[in-house]
Amino acid sequence: MLAFDYRNCLSEAVKQHGVSPDDLAGALRRYPEVHKTVVLKARNPELPLGFIRLPFDREGLPDILALARRTRNRFDTFVVAGIGGSALGNLALQGALRDRYWNLRSLKERGGRPRLFVLDNIDPESMKSFLETVDLRRTMINVISKAGTTAECLAVFFVIWQKLQKAVGAKKARSHVVLTTDKEKGFLRELANEGFCEESFVIPRNVGGRFSVLSPVGLVSAACSGINVRALLDGAQEAAERFRVQDEAVSSEPSPAYLFAALNWLLYRQGKTMCVMMPYADALYGMADWFRQLWAESLGKEKDNAGNIVNVGPTPIKALGATDQHSQVQLYREGPNDKVVVFLSVEKYRAAVRIPPFKGHYLSGHTLNELIRAEERATRVALTRSQRPNMTIRFPRIDERSVGEFIFMMELATAYAGELFNINAFNQPGVELAKNYTYALLGRDGYQNYLEELNAFPE
Amino acid sequence: MLAFDYRNCLSEAVKQHGVSPDDLAGALRRYPEVHKTVVLKARNPELPLGFIRLPFDREGLPDILALARRTRNRFDTFVVAGIGGSALGNLALQGALRDRYWNLRSLKERGGRPRLFVLDNIDPESMKSFLETVDLRRTMINVISKAGTTAECLAVFFVIWQKLQKAVGAKKARSHVVLTTDKEKGFLRELANEGFCEESFVIPRNVGGRFSVLSPVGLVSAACSGINVRALLDGAQEAAERFRVQDEAVSSEPSPAYLFAALNWLLYRQGKTMCVMMPYADALYGMADWFRQLWAESLGKEKDNAGNIVNVGPTPIKALGATDQHSQVQLYREGPNDKVVVFLSVEKYRAAVRIPPFKGHYLSGHTLNELIRAEERATRVALTRSQRPNMTIRFPRIDERSVGEFIFMMELATAYAGELFNINAFNQPGVELAKNYTYALLGRDGYQNYLEELNAFPE
Repeated sequence: MLAFDYRNCLSEAVKQHGVSPDDLAGALRRYPEVHKTVVLKARNPELPLGFIRLPFDREGLPDILALARRTRNRFDTFVVAGIGGSALGNLALQGALRDRYWNLRSLKERGGRPRLFVLDNIDPESMKSFLETVDLRRTMINVISKAGTTAECLAVFFVIWQKLQKAVGAKKARSHVVLTTDKEKGFLRELANEGFCEESFVIPRNVGGRFSVLSPVGLVSAACSGINVRALLDGAQEAAERFRVQDEAVSSEPSPAYLFAALNWLLYRQGKTMCVMMPYADALYGMADWFRQLWAESLGKEKDNAGNIVNVGPTPIKALGATDQHSQVQLYREGPNDKVVVFLSVEKYRAAVRIPPFKGHYLSGHTLNELIRAEERATRVALTRSQRPNMTIRFPRIDERSVGEFIFMMELATAYAGELFNINAFNQPGVELAKNYTYALLGRDGYQNYLEELNAFPE
Repeated sequence: MLAFDYRNCLSEAVKQHGVSPDDLAGALRRYPEVHKTVVLKARNPELPLGFIRLPFDREGLPDILALARRTRNRFDTFVVAGIGGSALGNLALQGALRDRYWNLRSLKERGGRPRLFVLDNIDPESMKSFLETVDLRRTMINVISKAGTTAECLAVFFVIWQKLQKAVGAKKARSHVVLTTDKEKGFLRELANEGFCEESFVIPRNVGGRFSVLSPVGLVSAACSGINVRALLDGAQEAAERFRVQDEAVSSEPSPAYLFAALNWLLYRQGKTMCVMMPYADALYGMADWFRQLWAESLGKEKDNAGNIVNVGPTPIKALGATDQHSQVQLYREGPNDKVVVFLSVEKYRAAVRIPPFKGHYLSGHTLNELIRAEERATRVALTRSQRPNMTIRFPRIDERSVGEFIFMMELATAYAGELFNINAFNQPGVELAKNYTYALLGRDGYQNYLEELNAFPE
């Protein structure tokens, strides 16, 4: 079970830069009301809080596990074509739960599981390199787009599809394709209905992209990589139960998910406008990147729920310990006191590496484990001494259960934070305009009127 | 030559969120004075502005190129053991100037050049995976630390050194080691003097880590990877000459380096406390990470030059186009107007990829190149329309010359910005405390007194 330590963001630890006892008490009093609001919204399948039910939803699991069994030893490479919420969770799970240099290992060392490539950009240089690097005859591609219309995702798919047909023939190419999309609507679902794929999976309509990692969006590539997705869901489910997401009435003892939301909200209001997530583990860096979308896109909003212009939202930042001590900590300690640092800490790493004797050096006889933990503790204390608020989420160990728990805790915290900020955490109106401009530039029907607007600006 | 377009951060484009004509004129009037200060400091070899001379300093180049020739086809893997300024530049050069999936290509496809691993963390899980993945018999390790004492770097070296000895024998192991450190002092220099390595290189004493990529720190791994380091230096040198770094007297026409510094300084004072560097090219993402250290560690300072407590400094953030449109742009457009976005744009990518016909889809017949450029333009206009200040640095093409120019422009801009912020851009006093705590926890002699201080804080 994760532990959440927030002592270093209270005024007792960091004076006026921390949360005062009164402010904390005030926010905690709101826990039952905020929790109830979120739970009631989640009960309504028309509202986009479907993420809350994902840990309990095992209906699609057998098909996912069957695909993973079928593809084992058959494909050397698994490609995700997706972007944003259809990519960041996949990368985060892979980073956390597979070997650091997974893609450099042999198929045998990988236990017959494929390498994973997440093509979440449309850079032509990267695409060229990708096509030169992989053997499409042994490659499966999972195209992921909820609406089924995402330009980046489709462009990547069209490019690979043509090469795949050349490599294995038009008929067999379909057996290399998995589509993950809406149950009924959209371009990808139409393809699936035409039998264009080996298999298709459904993204529940009330689950938004950035909340979808525990749906087939994240689970399919994870299962094919040999990640124990059942344990991942178990970890999330236990957290969900402990956080009482099925109870509308909770006592006043707030869960870590609520505490995380409330403290970040209070700190934001005190001018800590940036939230730095800093894992002390390479494996969790992808989780910080996943959180970055979750937090930014959910809470960064122009209008509050009453329609007032508020232009609100903390800026999430990813950092990596110990590495970024040599890059960012100077700023974090001495620059403006405008951040809260969220350390992700690991009690027990999955490996232990001894530092051998070398000419009587003081590091000899220690382990890398001791060193990285010492650096984390040192940085935490140094920040606290400089009155920089910080908090720590401790993983007993990085494994499927703790990762599932973390994911669910952050997602629920985001929903709570949306209520505290009084904004809609589940839409993203701010990205539409650029999409429409892009359509206009590419000549998509119905978007010509945006061209004039666009051309009023210098290129 | 890079182009610098800053129209979208002026008040004409983004109203009160932009720089006013008066403020701009005021900052530009200071150009001759600020330039003169920087140039005079750089002329004094005792002051830490040695980076300015690096593009002109070709003295060490023959040895670097000779090493690259000697190692070609001999080593399959090149490891950098370094952290912060001894790692970020290496990663940035590799990302920009070598193939995206370089480490997955065969030695032949790489032209006999090695794979590159930059071990800039002390995560035991990553180290275990690394040791299982590479064949040390065909691995060269470049240990980089200016002081020669960096704990992370030495720990990594000690671990690999022991395994290397086992793999190839104590005597031959030395021929796998390259040391890059101070000319005379420190633990690594002592090793070099004992003949502990195949080759050693010198980091000039007046060049700080984050300004050292154009010294042997960055050049050795780049040259061994087949990057044309001469062209890299040429690009930097041409920029340096165009920016008149050898002239103390300049006319009032400011260089892009000064403009970048001045605009960012003015925008910071207007509350744009974050600087998001967002390349529209996977290859330049590492450059944004390199810039992140340069900007944060140089400008994030507690005290100004007069000793006043100012706690100043912009927070640099890395983002990636088009990918982060689906993660961060919602916040950038609708959240608080507290950022300036610096787009890194590419005129001509090193590959062109056509999107094949697919069921009459509107994307068919376009190229990925058109798509990514359309998205960049769309995002720029969407941000500008929301009065979010932004600027664009355009690479005609990503190659050694343009990358060298970019590096030098950013370094010089940092020196200018230090003068404008009136702080010392070349020290990092804020990182010492955590280092001392770490030493204390590991029992290094002379640091025991920090233990008590540390233990006053909860673990």
